[in-house]
Amino acid sequence: INIFFSSTGVSADLPSWNNTSTKSAIVSFVKKVTQEGSSDFVPPELRIAVFDNDGTLWAEKPAYVQLLFAIDEIKRLAPEHPKWQKEQPFASILKEDFHSLLTLGKADRLKIISTTQTGMTDTEFNRVVNSWLTDAKNPLTGKPYRNMVYQPMHELLEYLRANGFKTYISSGGGVDFIRALSMSFYGIPPEQVIGSRFKLRYEDDDGHPQIITTDKLDFVNDGVGKAIGISQVIGLRPIFVAGNSDGDLQMLEWSTSGKGPRFGMLIHHTDSKREWSYDSGSKVGHLDKALKAAKLYGWTVVDMTKDWAVVFPQSKVTTP
Amino acid sequence: INIFFSSTGVSADLPSWNNTSTKSAIVSFVKKVTQEGSSDFVPPELRIAVFDNDGTLWAEKPAYVQLLFAIDEIKRLAPEHPKWQKEQPFASILKEDFHSLLTLGKADRLKIISTTQTGMTDTEFNRVVNSWLTDAKNPLTGKPYRNMVYQPMHELLEYLRANGFKTYISSGGGVDFIRALSMSFYGIPPEQVIGSRFKLRYEDDDGHPQIITTDKLDFVNDGVGKAIGISQVIGLRPIFVAGNSDGDLQMLEWSTSGKGPRFGMLIHHTDSKREWSYDSGSKVGHLDKALKAAKLYGWTVVDMTKDWAVVFPQSKVTTP
Ligand SMILES: [Ca+2]
Ligand SMILES: [Ca+2]
Repeated sequence: INIFFSSTGVSADLPSWNNTSTKSAIVSFVKKVTQEGSSDFVPPELRIAVFDNDGTLWAEKPAYVQLLFAIDEIKRLAPEHPKWQKEQPFASILKEDFHSLLTLGKADRLKIISTTQTGMTDTEFNRVVNSWLTDAKNPLTGKPYRNMVYQPMHELLEYLRANGFKTYISSGGGVDFIRALSMSFYGIPPEQVIGSRFKLRYEDDDGHPQIITTDKLDFVNDGVGKAIGISQVIGLRPIFVAGNSDGDLQMLEWSTSGKGPRFGMLIHHTDSKREWSYDSGSKVGHLDKALKAAKLYGWTVVDMTKDWAVVFPQSKVTTP
Repeated sequence: INIFFSSTGVSADLPSWNNTSTKSAIVSFVKKVTQEGSSDFVPPELRIAVFDNDGTLWAEKPAYVQLLFAIDEIKRLAPEHPKWQKEQPFASILKEDFHSLLTLGKADRLKIISTTQTGMTDTEFNRVVNSWLTDAKNPLTGKPYRNMVYQPMHELLEYLRANGFKTYISSGGGVDFIRALSMSFYGIPPEQVIGSRFKLRYEDDDGHPQIITTDKLDFVNDGVGKAIGISQVIGLRPIFVAGNSDGDLQMLEWSTSGKGPRFGMLIHHTDSKREWSYDSGSKVGHLDKALKAAKLYGWTVVDMTKDWAVVFPQSKVTTP
């Protein structure tokens, strides 16, 4: 079957979505908010759609991509830092002690990230991330990260944009990391990425003004922070919002309790064959409270097994 | 003369700009960055233009509009706060002691602003601001604030957007205040406004999640902060940036020292007849260092007297 064109006549816009009630719910929401004269019509400037990133737009197993990147960076930079051989958490990384790595605490994760991803300008950091992405592969699937993006969600982003929506990412991950790839992976420009962030410092020692990312944490865009981050940057409640874990709970609650038509979407990782099956038992992408809230609020739960005809891109994906 | 259509054949896009070297500089910059195949071509996603607000997009005399709004709010709310009759700075406001008001210190200005503009949701605050704008008038000119927007800058915003630019505001003023009017005054949506801000709080006492602006200052978007605010929210150096005071210095320096074609603009208030003439001697819109830096960096200085055929809208302006 040709997965890129629907032959059912229902909708050619979301070819990798099966014709289930989930797809119908998406299409009928978009139709009603874009139909001029309808009581549910939403003017284009209010058509804000916000997506979580890890586990919503791309896979998050065995660990968040940003952390896998940081681990590779520690290895790459180790020759310049002989002390790391004896200093935790660096020593575990260099010894490839995967058990220790998978159980890293918050402080250690932050240390690894600030060591590899601060102290430079965003331009410099972009270069490092994109150089890494050229060769890096998901350790479980052996696929490049570009091919670990969910094909149905890629189509959903394009479908919403084609219908006048402005698409945003709101992630617990670092804003700089996602900005380095958001345009080429998702067609989302850097200014439409909201994430956790470090404080910035203005430097002008040599007449060449630069802004450097410091290693002081400024804002954690998770849980309540996700709703606050959106309010701070966008200044509006999104009308469409998608997530996959309890970290998205408040963002979903706040967005979908605004006035007028709202769409809440929760990706449920049910597919142990084509992806991974996990929810309340998983540390990464822990989903429990938000799944219960979905019923209460009427959010659409995407059952990956039933709703997605395809999970990952089938052919080699090139930059959109 | 018909000010809305140029009859010179040079450009119909900026009718309120005289045909001086300033207008030529703007037009030739926009032409070169939008001409495909040219070595100066900038793809649309990098065409970011950022404007200061007070004194750049609208008038800032006798005081910042946000402060004039706050003063009116204090008067409106006074009956509910009998203590204010004896408490500074409220007492001076209620006595209409203008001398005290014009020399208010930073702490007092902040107190007036936090008293009138925090403790509510952005939706509630929008309503208050727009209700005020219906009747409020500039105390020196007697004109509604909508008619205190600079007509040439309004045209410049539209001209840039027509050429694929994304237009932003970066203001030392409060982000919520500007967001309440940015779309109707400037055609700029709330998510393209960067400003000073208070911390936000998530509340969900009654099952109706809300985000409340607290009275704790979070970020001052002025001076170095203006460059940092842009980097934080947009993640890119703008290629076009306009300001009018020393508070815009670092934003201009940082933006225009990026690689490739850049345009820095400084509005010089030279027109004592149609507006006000001020720079280094003024507290509001103090301009000294940035004017000197303009020569060094090659920024375009707008001489209001010579470059603008019209300052304010001539006829009754309606919502765009
Ligand atoms: Ca997630
Ligand atoms: Ca100003």
